Amino acid sequence: MSGALIYLDHAAATPLDEKVLAAMQPYFSDAFFNPSSPYAAAIEVRKKYESAKAALAATFGAKADEIVITAGATESINLAIHSSSGHIVTSSIEHHAVLAAAAEHDYTLVQPTEKGSITPDAVRAALRPDTTLVSIQLANNELGTIQPLRDIAEMIRDERAKRAEAGNNTPLLLHSDASQGFGHIDVHVARLGVDLLTLNAGKMYGPKAVGLLWAKPGVLLKAQIVGGGQERGLRSGTENVAGVIGFAKAASLADAHRRTEAERLSGLRDTLQTALVEAFPEAIVSGSTKKRLPNFLHISFPGIDGERLVFMLETKGICVATGSACAANKGTRSHVLTAIGLAPEVADGSLRITLGRLTTPEQIDRVIQEISSAVSAEQSRTNLS
Amino acid sequence: MSGALIYLDHAAATPLDEKVLAAMQPYFSDAFFNPSSPYAAAIEVRKKYESAKAALAATFGAKADEIVITAGATESINLAIHSSSGHIVTSSIEHHAVLAAAAEHDYTLVQPTEKGSITPDAVRAALRPDTTLVSIQLANNELGTIQPLRDIAEMIRDERAKRAEAGNNTPLLLHSDASQGFGHIDVHVARLGVDLLTLNAGKMYGPKAVGLLWAKPGVLLKAQIVGGGQERGLRSGTENVAGVIGFAKAASLADAHRRTEAERLSGLRDTLQTALVEAFPEAIVSGSTKKRLPNFLHISFPGIDGERLVFMLETKGICVATGSACAANKGTRSHVLTAIGLAPEVADGSLRITLGRLTTPEQIDRVIQEISSAVSAEQSRTNLS
Repeated sequence: MSGALIYLDHAAATPLDEKVLAAMQPYFSDAFFNPSSPYAAAIEVRKKYESAKAALAATFGAKADEIVITAGATESINLAIHSSSGHIVTSSIEHHAVLAAAAEHDYTLVQPTEKGSITPDAVRAALRPDTTLVSIQLANNELGTIQPLRDIAEMIRDERAKRAEAGNNTPLLLHSDASQGFGHIDVHVARLGVDLLTLNAGKMYGPKAVGLLWAKPGVLLKAQIVGGGQERGLRSGTENVAGVIGFAKAASLADAHRRTEAERLSGLRDTLQTALVEAFPEAIVSGSTKKRLPNFLHISFPGIDGERLVFMLETKGICVATGSACAANKGTRSHVLTAIGLAPEVADGSLRITLGRLTTPEQIDRVIQEISSAVSAEQSRTNLS
Repeated sequence: MSGALIYLDHAAATPLDEKVLAAMQPYFSDAFFNPSSPYAAAIEVRKKYESAKAALAATFGAKADEIVITAGATESINLAIHSSSGHIVTSSIEHHAVLAAAAEHDYTLVQPTEKGSITPDAVRAALRPDTTLVSIQLANNELGTIQPLRDIAEMIRDERAKRAEAGNNTPLLLHSDASQGFGHIDVHVARLGVDLLTLNAGKMYGPKAVGLLWAKPGVLLKAQIVGGGQERGLRSGTENVAGVIGFAKAASLADAHRRTEAERLSGLRDTLQTALVEAFPEAIVSGSTKKRLPNFLHISFPGIDGERLVFMLETKGICVATGSACAANKGTRSHVLTAIGLAPEVADGSLRITLGRLTTPEQIDRVIQEISSAVSAEQSRTNLS
């Protein structure tokens, strides 16, 4: 990235870590063999691929043969959701991948609190006797609000017990899209209590277009892409060896530096938030400020055009988003902000600022100045007009 | 790849070309932005992505907005086949991706000639009034036999005209998996007369896990992976920018060197074939020797165990396959060889030798010696036992 840029959109994309690229490098042009080929050089590649899967799975408390490698979180989410044969419960503030996949089934949307939290009670209320899947993100990708997944998992275990008592043997599974959060908060399948988990290499300084779906042993998946039978028949196609080696390295680095990085980023984020709220008391910080990813700040300046702010900041070399990259590109108001009840004139003045490994204290100082100048300028312009 | 290895399995995997990697490099850690993000740096990435798609499409006579980028040929094939709502006709010697995807529909398998060719008449005989898709590979991935796609396309145009006359408005489309062949023979959608075309970057010295499906304007596809709406809503997921930049570069290189490389490789292949058939007159070369990819030699030594040959050659640093990588890994006899009626004792003594950019005349000389020694040794061992 150009050294002059201040990148504060880590929720949309992260740069490939140099150590990750170095780990991938041997698999591009040297050990490029098809892992299904019969000679020693290919068998060695197969072993490296399987070891990487095991190392990757271990970072969140799982085993290699419980994960299916995909081309990214969107594919993983589709695989999880389309494997469900019954009613689906999800929330209105999920990523578009969850919403669009669920919409191809019989489904119910749970509404968040005004802090962007999905409560176990709200999920419970949406359950039906034929519900087979609940899909709730680990953390919201616009607000950074961390969902009470463990509590939702506990509620679901209770519901399962009730079903068993009532003689209803319809399975009830919990899937979580944990694309946002890995490397910032603890992600461990047993501790979370989930049955299915989606992760994305491209959001953790790993390669783009590589993801995984973890499924608890015994959970049945329905292959979407069939063929040569790779990934235990659950996702055919020649294995992305370099991609998975990179994913494993990225997950291991993210896991190793999680605590220190979370502390560092939440400190910088709090500095930024405090300064902006002091300068603009009317500014609204959305989402939970307690249960929030350490690198997220969602802030709205009522009456200001967020898109104009993004362009003004861009001329100062600062990259921030108005919402998620997918939604931003469509020019529509964020479905998340609508769901939490943010008034349109507030929602339209929003910035999603997401810090990451590239972020330094000096950058944050500059960002405080530049956002302050831009918002002041816009306020003056709007008042004058 | 280790300089000591002689790699003759280019149909299973190709090394990433250094020029391709160089083209991809800026998009890993520098221009890593999500192409859907709103700031200038991301918009620049979006433009590069779209230009790469246009350049890629142009190599086979298509336009950027007619292609859908996928995670490889298997996904492309699944997208093409699952978009069909009626009866499907394909051949018994297709790649497993086609066979497995077709098996999820009402389908009929056309049998090949003993040379591994699928004739227009055989395809026509399998058509039904409710057939909506015909899927025939450009060239067989075990034999290298080039299919008479233009003739099949012409037959299909005739059938469409007949349907129109009969008042049957069921669409009838022709899909071709051209994963094997691009860079060796002319691949141009209008000249081939296809409606849908699958290509795979990983088979043309491009990155693994990147493919595309081309669909003629007006052909409706049914998205398998939904979400953020990327690829015109036909394949959601954050774009694999580096992968597509690499795919475009790989396709452009393959296209530019096609004629000279085809001539060079067919010369080397013919030298190898002539020497082996002279040394072992009982050897059987399968598939068409006239309509064949320039880099393919499928040869069987009756009564010899092909897998043992592979292992013996491997100790001499030579990598060859017994069949396609997918089939080889399953320890089952090739469905292609069974379909062309090769006797089991002949089929089991087969080698698939596929040349490529790494292949030199000196290597071919060594390979002739080593295969001759290995086959002779096995013949002596078998006769003595």
